[in-house]
Amino acid sequence: MSANIQEYIDRLNKLDFKKMYNGSFFKTWEKTDDELHAVFTVADALRNLRENNISTRIFDSGLGISIFRDNSTRTRFSFASACNMLGLAVQDMDEKKSQIAHGETVRETANMISFMADVIGIRDDMYIGKGLKYMHDVDDAVTEGYKDGILEQRPTLVDLQDDVDHPTQLMADTLHCIHEFGGVENLKGKKIAMSWAYSPSYGKPLSVPQGAIGLFTRLGCEVVLAHPEGYEVMPEVEEIAKKQAEAYGGSFRKTNNMAEAFKDADIVYPKSWAPFAAMEKRTDLYGKGDFDGIDALEKELLAQNAEHKDWCCTEELMKTTKDGKALYLHCLPADINDVSCEQGEVEASVFDRYRDSLYKEASYKPYIIAAMIFLAKCKDPQAVLKALADNGKERHFMK
Amino acid sequence: MSANIQEYIDRLNKLDFKKMYNGSFFKTWEKTDDELHAVFTVADALRNLRENNISTRIFDSGLGISIFRDNSTRTRFSFASACNMLGLAVQDMDEKKSQIAHGETVRETANMISFMADVIGIRDDMYIGKGLKYMHDVDDAVTEGYKDGILEQRPTLVDLQDDVDHPTQLMADTLHCIHEFGGVENLKGKKIAMSWAYSPSYGKPLSVPQGAIGLFTRLGCEVVLAHPEGYEVMPEVEEIAKKQAEAYGGSFRKTNNMAEAFKDADIVYPKSWAPFAAMEKRTDLYGKGDFDGIDALEKELLAQNAEHKDWCCTEELMKTTKDGKALYLHCLPADINDVSCEQGEVEASVFDRYRDSLYKEASYKPYIIAAMIFLAKCKDPQAVLKALADNGKERHFMK
Amino acid sequence: MSANIQEYIDRLNKLDFKKMYNGSFFKTWEKTDDELHAVFTVADALRNLRENNISTRIFDSGLGISIFRDNSTRTRFSFASACNMLGLAVQDMDEKKSQIAHGETVRETANMISFMADVIGIRDDMYIGKGLKYMHDVDDAVTEGYKDGILEQRPTLVDLQDDVDHPTQLMADTLHCIHEFGGVENLKGKKIAMSWAYSPSYGKPLSVPQGAIGLFTRLGCEVVLAHPEGYEVMPEVEEIAKKQAEAYGGSFRKTNNMAEAFKDADIVYPKSWAPFAAMEKRTDLYGKGDFDGIDALEKELLAQNAEHKDWCCTEELMKTTKDGKALYLHCLPADINDVSCEQGEVEASVFDRYRDSLYKEASYKPYIIAAMIFLAKCKDPQAVLKALADNGKERHFMK
Repeated sequence: MSANIQEYIDRLNKLDFKKMYNGSFFKTWEKTDDELHAVFTVADALRNLRENNISTRIFDSGLGISIFRDNSTRTRFSFASACNMLGLAVQDMDEKKSQIAHGETVRETANMISFMADVIGIRDDMYIGKGLKYMHDVDDAVTEGYKDGILEQRPTLVDLQDDVDHPTQLMADTLHCIHEFGGVENLKGKKIAMSWAYSPSYGKPLSVPQGAIGLFTRLGCEVVLAHPEGYEVMPEVEEIAKKQAEAYGGSFRKTNNMAEAFKDADIVYPKSWAPFAAMEKRTDLYGKGDFDGIDALEKELLAQNAEHKDWCCTEELMKTTKDGKALYLHCLPADINDVSCEQGEVEASVFDRYRDSLYKEASYKPYIIAAMIFLAKCKDPQAVLKALADNGKERHFMK
Repeated sequence: MSANIQEYIDRLNKLDFKKMYNGSFFKTWEKTDDELHAVFTVADALRNLRENNISTRIFDSGLGISIFRDNSTRTRFSFASACNMLGLAVQDMDEKKSQIAHGETVRETANMISFMADVIGIRDDMYIGKGLKYMHDVDDAVTEGYKDGILEQRPTLVDLQDDVDHPTQLMADTLHCIHEFGGVENLKGKKIAMSWAYSPSYGKPLSVPQGAIGLFTRLGCEVVLAHPEGYEVMPEVEEIAKKQAEAYGGSFRKTNNMAEAFKDADIVYPKSWAPFAAMEKRTDLYGKGDFDGIDALEKELLAQNAEHKDWCCTEELMKTTKDGKALYLHCLPADINDVSCEQGEVEASVFDRYRDSLYKEASYKPYIIAAMIFLAKCKDPQAVLKALADNGKERHFMK
Repeated sequence: MSANIQEYIDRLNKLDFKKMYNGSFFKTWEKTDDELHAVFTVADALRNLRENNISTRIFDSGLGISIFRDNSTRTRFSFASACNMLGLAVQDMDEKKSQIAHGETVRETANMISFMADVIGIRDDMYIGKGLKYMHDVDDAVTEGYKDGILEQRPTLVDLQDDVDHPTQLMADTLHCIHEFGGVENLKGKKIAMSWAYSPSYGKPLSVPQGAIGLFTRLGCEVVLAHPEGYEVMPEVEEIAKKQAEAYGGSFRKTNNMAEAFKDADIVYPKSWAPFAAMEKRTDLYGKGDFDGIDALEKELLAQNAEHKDWCCTEELMKTTKDGKALYLHCLPADINDVSCEQGEVEASVFDRYRDSLYKEASYKPYIIAAMIFLAKCKDPQAVLKALADNGKERHFMK
């Protein structure tokens, strides 16, 4: 058994994450510190095994079901990778190919697709107040189905992005920061600027900035949320950030000045998002089927956006960060000046300098998802990790 | 080895199902009694293994190909589950993504996709006289391809619903009844009402009512087919039902009175379908490309439907069944009053009371499909079941 | 261990294909003779194992990613079969379901989908000068990603058809010829007619005729490229064919006379393609977004095509080939007279006579693709083949 695996097991032995067994993973702020650290630790352990060509399969057969209510590449492949790594086949629940009857209940569909499902991954982030609710409806339905003896196993739900939080993204971002700063304890006291940035597109989800202030305040960081007036995020998430900042000995404050946020920051996360109030309005219009209203709203928001083209992550701004070397984060794809658009979130030279780092940041997501599943599926994760390492089955035979 | 598995093996030892090896599964009335019982027995055995966390994989690699010529959720996931359980990866033959040349023969396509295919599952139920023919064309093509040395193995065809029968559905329905009534022998003499019911939609397939009268008459049931005048099913299937009723000591009769059918029934299956004659007409119109004609037909049928809104599975009707407690069956999704439509096939309170039962009914389908494949792929199914149980490989490692 | 496997290993021991390890497979003329022969040998070895029900899986888990920028059945299933045979799950990168940002770099997408990817298969043959470039961009991106530590493994790129060559097709065609003629050495001196043939459709790719003259001239064949005036292929590929013909002791010549090409031919490959010059023009129009121009070009080309309806593989022509029995090749689907069209590439009776042979020809493609992957993924392919044979794990358990 590789010494490394023992190190992860030792770490897990100090944590209490019993409740994750047979559970699901929604918003990070619903999880305990130990549970989040267990995810980081298992993600690293699985990566260690895979990098040493040791199989991480805990399933001989079984299905991971994906429901993407929006186009997706990164998340789709991350989920598929995580399932595959654990031995599950992915079956996509493509609503366009489905025969979902008008008025058919979520409860029924959820059970019908889950007879052999060990995991259900859902991305539903389009409409404020809808995505998370839908996921909980599915989770409740399969939990009940399992209790009622309809399902032989309780499928674990993994929230692949909802309208409030984006837990797999922010957990991956954080694991990247942990590795860059040499340990989670080194994130304590670090200044992180979660900043709005201009994009020529419309309606980008709030889940990333909200997820960021909801997670980094847990780590004792000095979190600054910067955006132009009118781009407020959900007040209840701000409340959570404030309370956590107090509880964890960090801070949370807001500013309408990007430069102020970047000044001496250790980590910057400049990214476009839509105003919460506007997204609420869009959800209402959508509910009423008022597509003219949605078009009008879009125009209005694009005009509002255009007033803030100066919110860009420039070389000049980067120079003002800690030693001019803040860690630049992005969930990708970014709107890069003169690459993906004329003017966008970031200057091309800044993006280029951090490209490798950004791709590494993204590379943690499959492992974070796999770790969430692993912890929900293994009663004794330490024993399973040890057994995988001891068995030492090659992932790639005679590589 | 679990004692249970031996019980299934003992049962199989009494049955003759040799001809299923390397065969395909189309209409149930083409199969012998022993063959049907073998499917039920293997389905239960596979479920027993899986519930005991024992791997049911009989393939290390191999493909299960799905061809769905209509939208589908339940069947798609049932087929994917069955394949996965046996170790096959599903590859969907999506005709929209395919480069099927104008005039390309079914024979050619069937061979081209089957070089590594162990199973082909097809659902094609839209046009009377088309679906089953297409499946047989595919089956013949790969059988010939195998004989001619083009294919290394003969892919087993599983009929996932055709225009005449819906064997996987009715076999699953029946297995559910077997478990609910405590054994197939207890179904003898039971009254089953296969009844038309009103739905605001148009053109639901005939394969369920036809499959029902074609299978339940095999079990010695008192089968009543109820529908309004004009909603006749295919005469040749009625003929089969009549002959079987005689041969198996049950009965088959028809009525235009739903209440009469429900009276003292042990099992009720109220469900909408389109008139056979109208479906034939639609197939003709479709063949001529007469889409205006199809629209006109649709309007006509919806108007005809609307005259029979009183054909609904109400609480009142349910009270008239055996002890007021008939087993309510449905292939799902059902048209539920005030849930999926204003007025439909069933009252919400009836549906709700049977919800768990209905979901369990559906849960048999993956096992029925897997059993059909298993019996076609194993020369000595008893030996393979014993070996799986003896090996005891965990499906979910260290669960 | 089966004696057959040792025979393949002995053959491999005489070849030098070290550079294939961790490489990709693009045009055949970029590969050495030994490398091509290694592919043929491994393809046969894998087929031998599979036919003897021995697992050919070299992966316990892992992904094969497919990118089809055009509709596809044969290639899609061939790639899926090859991946499955080796133990990889296929994840389709469906650009319609993807969230590829406007202007997003190929480099970024390639890395984002490749964290767990062992193989990427791409088909991109629509626009001259585009497909191969795109594949190389993807290959370069993941090679760099691997070097930079972003990817844990370097995904092997398999060119499933580009705008210049169609390596998996021609390698499969050639392996078929090798078996039909009893050994690659017997292809030396054989006359092969790669001939244009009439099709009522427009814009068929040049990659097949180009791939053919680029590969058969390597085998010492007497290669004749026949087409009507105006249907020239890319001059640089003709150059390669000429040079290779000289180097390998065969010949390469062109004619505008189909009968001359067929006369005494041992192998005939009659197939429609579009003129290179016209395809270049189409690429330009496409680049400018000039869809009216594309429509006009299409009309022009169809009119030009219609002048050459006499270019058909008739019984009469077949009689003039060697003993009237030339081996007829086609990549399928063919345009068959009175079957798929009124007048096309081949008479129905000719096609029918060669049907089994054509399907066998196609059956080599999954093995060719698997062999390309195998050679890129195994440091010591001989040892892995021996180990697979020695382990003798059943593909189909207790078949």
